[in-house]
Amino acid sequence: MQKNNVIWHDKYVKREERNRFFKHKSGLILLTGLSGSGKSTIAHYAERELFARDVHAYVLDGDNVRHGLNSNLGFSREHRKENLRRIVEVSKLFADAGMLVFAAFISPNKENREYFRTRFEDDNFLEVYVKCSLEVCEMRDPKGQYKKARAGIIKNYTGIDSPYEEPENPDLVIDTARTDIRTAGQMLLDLIDNKGFLVVE
Amino acid sequence: MQKNNVIWHDKYVKREERNRFFKHKSGLILLTGLSGSGKSTIAHYAERELFARDVHAYVLDGDNVRHGLNSNLGFSREHRKENLRRIVEVSKLFADAGMLVFAAFISPNKENREYFRTRFEDDNFLEVYVKCSLEVCEMRDPKGQYKKARAGIIKNYTGIDSPYEEPENPDLVIDTARTDIRTAGQMLLDLIDNKGFLVVE
Repeated sequence: MQKNNVIWHDKYVKREERNRFFKHKSGLILLTGLSGSGKSTIAHYAERELFARDVHAYVLDGDNVRHGLNSNLGFSREHRKENLRRIVEVSKLFADAGMLVFAAFISPNKENREYFRTRFEDDNFLEVYVKCSLEVCEMRDPKGQYKKARAGIIKNYTGIDSPYEEPENPDLVIDTARTDIRTAGQMLLDLIDNKGFLVVE
Repeated sequence: MQKNNVIWHDKYVKREERNRFFKHKSGLILLTGLSGSGKSTIAHYAERELFARDVHAYVLDGDNVRHGLNSNLGFSREHRKENLRRIVEVSKLFADAGMLVFAAFISPNKENREYFRTRFEDDNFLEVYVKCSLEVCEMRDPKGQYKKARAGIIKNYTGIDSPYEEPENPDLVIDTARTDIRTAGQMLLDLIDNKGFLVVE
């Protein structure tokens, strides 16, 4: 059996094989920006368009991560860091499984975003800044969080009483105050295409 | 934009759509058993065979989870529980993404294994007991862990100074002391097939 272990170890399905089979690269696209800027919406638009082209993408965002894997984390400095660490590690697993991951999270700290880049060094990683003024985000307030933050019910809310540090060198900036969802989604798809994610050598 | 959010929300690629596209179900197959019983080996054998049939499976095991996502967890009672909780939640994400997950972990406690079943209630979940006597596992000792446990270098090692509670009603028992890897892998594949995982209505 030990002998078999050795033999069968080579049988693992490697990432490169999955990439060749799916005919596209796997990796991580981080969408950072204020709550209400449209990160998840853009990511899901791209996911849908890619699905129609047989490209296997998956969106990680507050909806499916905060209520599950990271449900035991709050918003302290330490917990925010652990939140991102887990997202990075799950993204690594998804990338290994051949999928393109969109991670749509506020990710307000430059330092924490650098962690993504470091863990995905020499891997396929893109940073997209979904830019939108606080005024517009607050007006949209899709989950009523800004209202609660203004009322002091939620503390340390990014943009209100916790800072958002703008990315300095993102791979793409999408200004959603001036761009409709179709155009925004297309910008993201073009980026992925131009960066060579949709071909496998 | 808020209006767009609503419109595009329907655009999310749902699990059912991925299942239809891949032409197989997604879900979780837990392989439980002593260290050295052959859990990962069997899981990877099945993964490889399924890949050849265009079925998208992925193995979560100590190799890719303990060193990444769960690298900040030890082996205390509380940490073992959190270890499994995260594995369950990651499996949920993979299942949502249309994949069949093999979770190959010792999972020595009945209570913790019940947690898997509860979280995957009404979902596709199978429990496979990879059975092998401690004597044989210890003889194989692929990572030299039993030797360390016997020497007291590793504490609370399952089978040595921490109990393994045998599953009472697993969906399948594979006795790897008497079964070669090819037969064992085929037993797992037959189970998946018989349970209807490889067809989508």
